[in-house]
Amino acid sequence: MSRRKKRIVVALGGNALGNTPEEQVRQVRSAAEIIADLAAEGHELIIGHGNGPQVGIINSAMDYAASSGPRTPYMPFPECGAMSQGFIGYHLQQALQQSLLKRNLGKTVVSVVTQVLVDRQDPAFQNPTKPIGNFCTREEAEKLEKEKGYTFMEDAGRGYRRVVPSPEPKAIVELSAIRKMVQSGLIVIAVGGGGIPVVEEADGLHGIDAVIDKDMSSSKLARELKADVLLILTAVDQVYIHFNRPDQKALEQITAREAQDYISRGEFAKGSMLPKVEACLEFVKALPGRTAIITSLEKAQEALHGKAGTRICSEQAEFDYAPLEMDSVVYDVNAS
Amino acid sequence: MSRRKKRIVVALGGNALGNTPEEQVRQVRSAAEIIADLAAEGHELIIGHGNGPQVGIINSAMDYAASSGPRTPYMPFPECGAMSQGFIGYHLQQALQQSLLKRNLGKTVVSVVTQVLVDRQDPAFQNPTKPIGNFCTREEAEKLEKEKGYTFMEDAGRGYRRVVPSPEPKAIVELSAIRKMVQSGLIVIAVGGGGIPVVEEADGLHGIDAVIDKDMSSSKLARELKADVLLILTAVDQVYIHFNRPDQKALEQITAREAQDYISRGEFAKGSMLPKVEACLEFVKALPGRTAIITSLEKAQEALHGKAGTRICSEQAEFDYAPLEMDSVVYDVNAS
Repeated sequence: MSRRKKRIVVALGGNALGNTPEEQVRQVRSAAEIIADLAAEGHELIIGHGNGPQVGIINSAMDYAASSGPRTPYMPFPECGAMSQGFIGYHLQQALQQSLLKRNLGKTVVSVVTQVLVDRQDPAFQNPTKPIGNFCTREEAEKLEKEKGYTFMEDAGRGYRRVVPSPEPKAIVELSAIRKMVQSGLIVIAVGGGGIPVVEEADGLHGIDAVIDKDMSSSKLARELKADVLLILTAVDQVYIHFNRPDQKALEQITAREAQDYISRGEFAKGSMLPKVEACLEFVKALPGRTAIITSLEKAQEALHGKAGTRICSEQAEFDYAPLEMDSVVYDVNAS
Repeated sequence: MSRRKKRIVVALGGNALGNTPEEQVRQVRSAAEIIADLAAEGHELIIGHGNGPQVGIINSAMDYAASSGPRTPYMPFPECGAMSQGFIGYHLQQALQQSLLKRNLGKTVVSVVTQVLVDRQDPAFQNPTKPIGNFCTREEAEKLEKEKGYTFMEDAGRGYRRVVPSPEPKAIVELSAIRKMVQSGLIVIAVGGGGIPVVEEADGLHGIDAVIDKDMSSSKLARELKADVLLILTAVDQVYIHFNRPDQKALEQITAREAQDYISRGEFAKGSMLPKVEACLEFVKALPGRTAIITSLEKAQEALHGKAGTRICSEQAEFDYAPLEMDSVVYDVNAS
């Protein structure tokens, strides 16, 4: 029975952040309270987060101002992603620091600007799928396709949106820094928005227009840091099969093989639950014996104790290893 | 004769960054090469930087888009500052990591989102002086003064610009994280743009519309980290007295008392050289025996070796202590 302190990579979904600065300030406070409760259990925490609405806002505003506004320069998409890391990181670390102070934990949290390396040969670059920015008309879309080489797609009758590729994360550029920070006892906010996508060229790294799935980047980070748990927090408490059908069923714990079967049968929605389950699979396949969890922010702590959420392990046997029964965790305060 | 590795806080001026994303990418490469040369001498480096043009661009674009554009929300000024830290930190750490890799130093650099606490009672809040954003007409200025409570000032016949307070930095919120990172051997980019200004209220920290002088924040950081050297890099090689007069004289080394005298005599331009000299003074007065240097990016290394720039120490005698003669530094590689 493992009762030691866990290293946990938490991936925060968009619902933890909101769509405006004011919403974000409010919502990160709730998220911060829950994360601080996990910190109070003595765990090492590394926090990833999404940036969909935020980078959309920044990109739209910068594009709009550059094309018609007050002499501001055109801002490339990776730079907008970097800005979103600063923006979200600021609110998140401010709220989390406050929640940690309230608990007298003597813990410190800090956000780091994170680049994530992708492969220019990734097939995703042939097939951009990730919508960013605002809706526009067909005429505007065609103009921008010609002028800037952007790709647009019609979005469910609501107009046209630019789409960018969503390549796989190959490496986390700031990994060794993040590892050192975790080792020195810091709570680290990293790979925000999936990380700033960069490709390697002869003279170094360069940003590229793309969005890396934040659960995939968090999974990559969890693997590299040999985390005990990958905890993906989203809008629902559990993963479902036969979703939205009369025989809909919540999953409590599944093996990698079961997860793979469900994926083959198309149980999980593309762009929604599918990448989350895939991110979990990558993690537990790379590190047998570790646990990936998908649940809501509200159920995070219960789920860590095996009482809520959907848990994914590489093999059935590993659930009995019970790495998550921590009701009587012995805290190693000095080690943190 | 001190030949040990130094802890150096470098404050990078706006000229190291440029005014557009493309300029910034180019200019940080030169800055990165010079900083990497300092890292190659075995020093611990903590890098602060300005954000004047960048936060101006972000703020103008966000304001413009929110008021007339594509349904993007109004973005408060501190949040724009946080974005600028992400934006500049991204380019700076990308370039510096490349320069470090070229030198095979096994060093890692990372940018951290940094909040800096200011005092709501700071007299600066009664007298906003720091221009931000774009020029506007008198009519536009009066409209915004009424609508949003902003303060505007006429700027040398070029139109009206919003001005915000420039309060003193009281504390660096992420100090303990930065200290741990430095101790674990990381090169840390912090207090970007002087830091995101925050005030303390009953329920925690809140952003406030202000700009903290980046040299003052870098000086504060240098004091808190007990740095050996505060190295302020700007557009000129040395500090001058009788500037732009026939008897103009470059200063090589001055004591705190001499610096104070020159300040009283109005030798240094407000909003330009004055805050730099004051930042140096604060540093050497708090940590007698340490050295503050003002010089250009190009002369940084020579200046550290006492061969260029303007050096400020608390007492004359301390120049003989020669903490900066490091021609034969003995590198303590393991300690880094």
